[in-house]
Amino acid sequence: MTRAFASDNNAPVHPDVMAALAAANEGHQPAYGADVHTARLGEVIKGLFGDHAEVYPVFNGSGANVIGLQAMCDRWSSVVCPESAHINLDECGAPEKVAGLKLIPVNTPDGKLTPELLDRHAQGFGDEHHAQPRVVSITQSTELGTLYTPAEITAIGALARERGMLLHVDGARLANAAAALDLPPRAFTTDAGVDVLSFGGTKNGLMLGEAIVVLNPDAVRGVRYLRKAALQLASKMRYVSAQLVALLEGDLWLRNARHANAMATRLATAAARVPGVEIVRPVQANAVFAVLPREVTERLRKQFRFHVWDERTGEVRWMCSFDTTATDVDDFATAIAQEMAASA
Amino acid sequence: MTRAFASDNNAPVHPDVMAALAAANEGHQPAYGADVHTARLGEVIKGLFGDHAEVYPVFNGSGANVIGLQAMCDRWSSVVCPESAHINLDECGAPEKVAGLKLIPVNTPDGKLTPELLDRHAQGFGDEHHAQPRVVSITQSTELGTLYTPAEITAIGALARERGMLLHVDGARLANAAAALDLPPRAFTTDAGVDVLSFGGTKNGLMLGEAIVVLNPDAVRGVRYLRKAALQLASKMRYVSAQLVALLEGDLWLRNARHANAMATRLATAAARVPGVEIVRPVQANAVFAVLPREVTERLRKQFRFHVWDERTGEVRWMCSFDTTATDVDDFATAIAQEMAASA
Amino acid sequence: MTRAFASDNNAPVHPDVMAALAAANEGHQPAYGADVHTARLGEVIKGLFGDHAEVYPVFNGSGANVIGLQAMCDRWSSVVCPESAHINLDECGAPEKVAGLKLIPVNTPDGKLTPELLDRHAQGFGDEHHAQPRVVSITQSTELGTLYTPAEITAIGALARERGMLLHVDGARLANAAAALDLPPRAFTTDAGVDVLSFGGTKNGLMLGEAIVVLNPDAVRGVRYLRKAALQLASKMRYVSAQLVALLEGDLWLRNARHANAMATRLATAAARVPGVEIVRPVQANAVFAVLPREVTERLRKQFRFHVWDERTGEVRWMCSFDTTATDVDDFATAIAQEMAASA
Amino acid sequence: MTRAFASDNNAPVHPDVMAALAAANEGHQPAYGADVHTARLGEVIKGLFGDHAEVYPVFNGSGANVIGLQAMCDRWSSVVCPESAHINLDECGAPEKVAGLKLIPVNTPDGKLTPELLDRHAQGFGDEHHAQPRVVSITQSTELGTLYTPAEITAIGALARERGMLLHVDGARLANAAAALDLPPRAFTTDAGVDVLSFGGTKNGLMLGEAIVVLNPDAVRGVRYLRKAALQLASKMRYVSAQLVALLEGDLWLRNARHANAMATRLATAAARVPGVEIVRPVQANAVFAVLPREVTERLRKQFRFHVWDERTGEVRWMCSFDTTATDVDDFATAIAQEMAASA
Repeated sequence: MTRAFASDNNAPVHPDVMAALAAANEGHQPAYGADVHTARLGEVIKGLFGDHAEVYPVFNGSGANVIGLQAMCDRWSSVVCPESAHINLDECGAPEKVAGLKLIPVNTPDGKLTPELLDRHAQGFGDEHHAQPRVVSITQSTELGTLYTPAEITAIGALARERGMLLHVDGARLANAAAALDLPPRAFTTDAGVDVLSFGGTKNGLMLGEAIVVLNPDAVRGVRYLRKAALQLASKMRYVSAQLVALLEGDLWLRNARHANAMATRLATAAARVPGVEIVRPVQANAVFAVLPREVTERLRKQFRFHVWDERTGEVRWMCSFDTTATDVDDFATAIAQEMAASA
Repeated sequence: MTRAFASDNNAPVHPDVMAALAAANEGHQPAYGADVHTARLGEVIKGLFGDHAEVYPVFNGSGANVIGLQAMCDRWSSVVCPESAHINLDECGAPEKVAGLKLIPVNTPDGKLTPELLDRHAQGFGDEHHAQPRVVSITQSTELGTLYTPAEITAIGALARERGMLLHVDGARLANAAAALDLPPRAFTTDAGVDVLSFGGTKNGLMLGEAIVVLNPDAVRGVRYLRKAALQLASKMRYVSAQLVALLEGDLWLRNARHANAMATRLATAAARVPGVEIVRPVQANAVFAVLPREVTERLRKQFRFHVWDERTGEVRWMCSFDTTATDVDDFATAIAQEMAASA
Repeated sequence: MTRAFASDNNAPVHPDVMAALAAANEGHQPAYGADVHTARLGEVIKGLFGDHAEVYPVFNGSGANVIGLQAMCDRWSSVVCPESAHINLDECGAPEKVAGLKLIPVNTPDGKLTPELLDRHAQGFGDEHHAQPRVVSITQSTELGTLYTPAEITAIGALARERGMLLHVDGARLANAAAALDLPPRAFTTDAGVDVLSFGGTKNGLMLGEAIVVLNPDAVRGVRYLRKAALQLASKMRYVSAQLVALLEGDLWLRNARHANAMATRLATAAARVPGVEIVRPVQANAVFAVLPREVTERLRKQFRFHVWDERTGEVRWMCSFDTTATDVDDFATAIAQEMAASA
Repeated sequence: MTRAFASDNNAPVHPDVMAALAAANEGHQPAYGADVHTARLGEVIKGLFGDHAEVYPVFNGSGANVIGLQAMCDRWSSVVCPESAHINLDECGAPEKVAGLKLIPVNTPDGKLTPELLDRHAQGFGDEHHAQPRVVSITQSTELGTLYTPAEITAIGALARERGMLLHVDGARLANAAAALDLPPRAFTTDAGVDVLSFGGTKNGLMLGEAIVVLNPDAVRGVRYLRKAALQLASKMRYVSAQLVALLEGDLWLRNARHANAMATRLATAAARVPGVEIVRPVQANAVFAVLPREVTERLRKQFRFHVWDERTGEVRWMCSFDTTATDVDDFATAIAQEMAASA
């Protein structure tokens, strides 16, 4: 099927990852993580995030988020997050339904929390009538294609600690953030006071696989049990871990992310030149948000798959992935220009 | 690593399945099940289980069980199952913790429920003080390597319906049962009154992937939503579905299961000949349960991985899988004989 | 202890209710609601809300809300409510933690939802990634002391039905609303399209006791079981029901509420005359919200108990109850004036 | 209505408790437990159970059990209890559904756990596939009218601690046990290694009210928050606490329990004399279990309310309460004799 701009999870598996799977497919290996690939992944993660980092491979990002948050929370805890957070909008209520977490969604202009917003919404400490604010969860890069600087994350983490709270990062697209910031992931996670990270692989070239990375072991309890009870313990875990090793051992994660980001910039630049097309959010990672006339959107979607983000405003989202080519982008930009012209 | 007898999930991926994954790895596909492989899987399942059958691919067996049961249950329901059921013993409480299900575990001699046992334990209908018995869940083949005949399943299903209950089958090893019974799966599921089935793939040669098969669509509500909320919706679902298609489209599932069963029989036969080794359960599928002297077990486990099933009795479990060879079995049987002799 | 303005649940039990409890305290009665008082309550509720109305007495308002909402919701449902709703702010996350409900809190200027706000926030119907909006929950009178007109409730209910949703009312202070609107409760519940109501008694003169009133029996499932599982089934239920009968059989509920409302108006009028005191919300029921200088608040709270509503703005809340006297109000108003003068 | 033998919760409120409620009904009191009666209750409980004891009043026994257990458990914990336990059979699955607890019900001959049974069923420590056994919960006196000696409880507690587990007692009828053992409650709770106790009041003369008594504060976390989130925080708590104070401050609890026990013994003695009536369990507290011909049971229940305990065996349960009179017992025994004679 034609490559398009619907989501980075419409993309296939990177050939190097397929090769790693084939290589892992030999003989018996103990199940549930006692295999050599999972052991190797542990070393790779320590290399990336520091010696205290612990890794728990899981199937998907929702799993990583829910387990990570649950491991940080008591039964009476709440989690402050942007209203646009994946955990709030796109997980069918899993944090509430599977984990009994109360979310406190915060309206933000750009998908980013700030210390001021956190301070205003993390309230009622010590009062039994309120779920107790325990975790602040941010997404890097955000669901709106924006980025936190290391200083911004550090400031949120500092306030969190002051309030007795912990800092969680949904890093489904952490690689894209690292590529965009041109910094090692450690600089804006471990070194910025992040306690637990969901590190994404599926959107960056894997078949499936995400990593719960515990940066601060004192911040969590019972991750192993929670992973099993949350239905996220792979029996043949070697095949999840081998993918993550293939992605993270060298620089495949960074090359893939850099490429996707570059394609998004290329697309935004081209689209912005088309009269009538408005790029409505900063393009800082691999997502482009634009507003088009509805009939143009409709005609374009017959040729290229992409999502309408907001029915009311006509905002659309175009995602680039590791396998998006410059030709894909140029063809799409041409189509945009043609349909806009046809509409004028 | 040496092939051994610890679990059928220590085995690798069958080469045909790896080939199917490689073949599926081309271009973009819509995420979350709108891909061609998932569509094909739907047809394959209808072919196997009848035109009403609906399939929902998930990551693992615990996921299939918990979602299937939840889709059949109200919030105030209970599930009657054998005490030895995987859902009771081996899922870290996921049915209770993720799904709020109350299990009513029933002591059974051989891992098999009967209408009599069901009748005795499904009590309190209409009484608000009791969780309402709604589902009976059985495992085919059982966790103890035993089998239900179609007539036995039909009888349980008939009583369940009489009581207003539904019938669920944990079929993590359904293929082994079909091979052993020499019957199409339909004969002891759809045709025996089963409402929902967890059909296993991982233990039978897949990398990962199980199928929730809804045989009676009137028995369930909200499967799609429950799958997402239970963290079991694969974004790149094509790679789960393509595996299941490879397994189920032809007779790979049956060949794999037949082979594993045959190896178990070979092993049981050989081991039973060793003086002092007792095979303590009927060998009807791919599991062998034996009692050995503890020091023999200890020495054997230094050479071959397998599980001690019951520390108190010295019972051990030997699992065969699709890739177990006759040589593996014979070498192991020889080692058993040697260590027993050394112990005498 | 001095009567003050902290909460209507600091008040004692109305003498008529105490008399009813004494009268109910004779001989044995079947437990769990099979008693004569609960039967009588059923009739009283039908008289107030119509022949289809069913009543389930419970211990407290959080219980009534959580059970009522759960009975209307599937496991994958969400509930749209104002951010200021008791269910969102003041129940320690019980809807999420006990019932697995996802709340969608909506920022409102005055604690009141509108069809427009509902329309904007009830999104994602049919999309498995989103918890499915199933109930809109409003509070009458609101936590901010404001009122919905019958027309406003009818409009919300109409849109809810159009969207396949249901309408829930948290009526912890429904009596105060009826008194203020000078309408029978039925006019703005049953007749306005409300499906389920939490009808409060504790804040209006009872010792403890609230009623889940199901106005539309088709809107709920399993209330009896949910009440038991949610720990809200009183064994000696006659003592809860007898209180509710005493309150609702005649016009005690209305007299109590009218009085409390009148006292709030008296207080607001007197306080508004004090220079520097600002009454910041419409006084439509029994709550007064004012902004005072912080040091005045501090000194006043040494003499009279009341709550600071918002630390940032200095807003305070004064609640009147059935037993608040004109003298209480006048003494308090005098104290306010004195402390303001002392502060000037 | 006639006093009968259905349940100790069919009885009314003891007059001294009604008097205490009337006395508490004066002026305003802070809500949610900051009142003088709750403070006094704290002292009374320390007097009974030792200086470390902390008390949390709640509405009912299911609430006390679920909150107490939850406060002792992690999200991945399990609770070992007799199959006949109230938490397993009679709470509509609340422990599983509200608290996400996994119960491990153990078949017992007499409703009593032993160290041997605990040892056999508390398994899988450290294995992520198993919910982790964390609490053993016993009932004193049991649901079957039997008693644990202090030594028996001490032995269970000792094994529990050895396994890293905690000991919970459901004391809905703890007073009956104390009366029967002729020992202060402390002797078989605090001094026997019990960590958390549900201390019952409703079945012993209260209108409603039970106490979570934390004997070992190190064994629990977050009780205050869990009580609120589990819908068991009374706003006008003074009326719950005043009842418990009236019961526990003097010896009313003991007198009530002694009387109920004596009436059960009187009834058992009289019934045992009737040919054909078999008393099938030791009568150690206020319950009598007997087997009668079904048609006799049927005729008797037209005159006196009582429960059929087991439809299959014809076992019935007769409960005595604080207000059962010797005449009630003698009349009932006469009726039993008459109906048995009529049946012969």
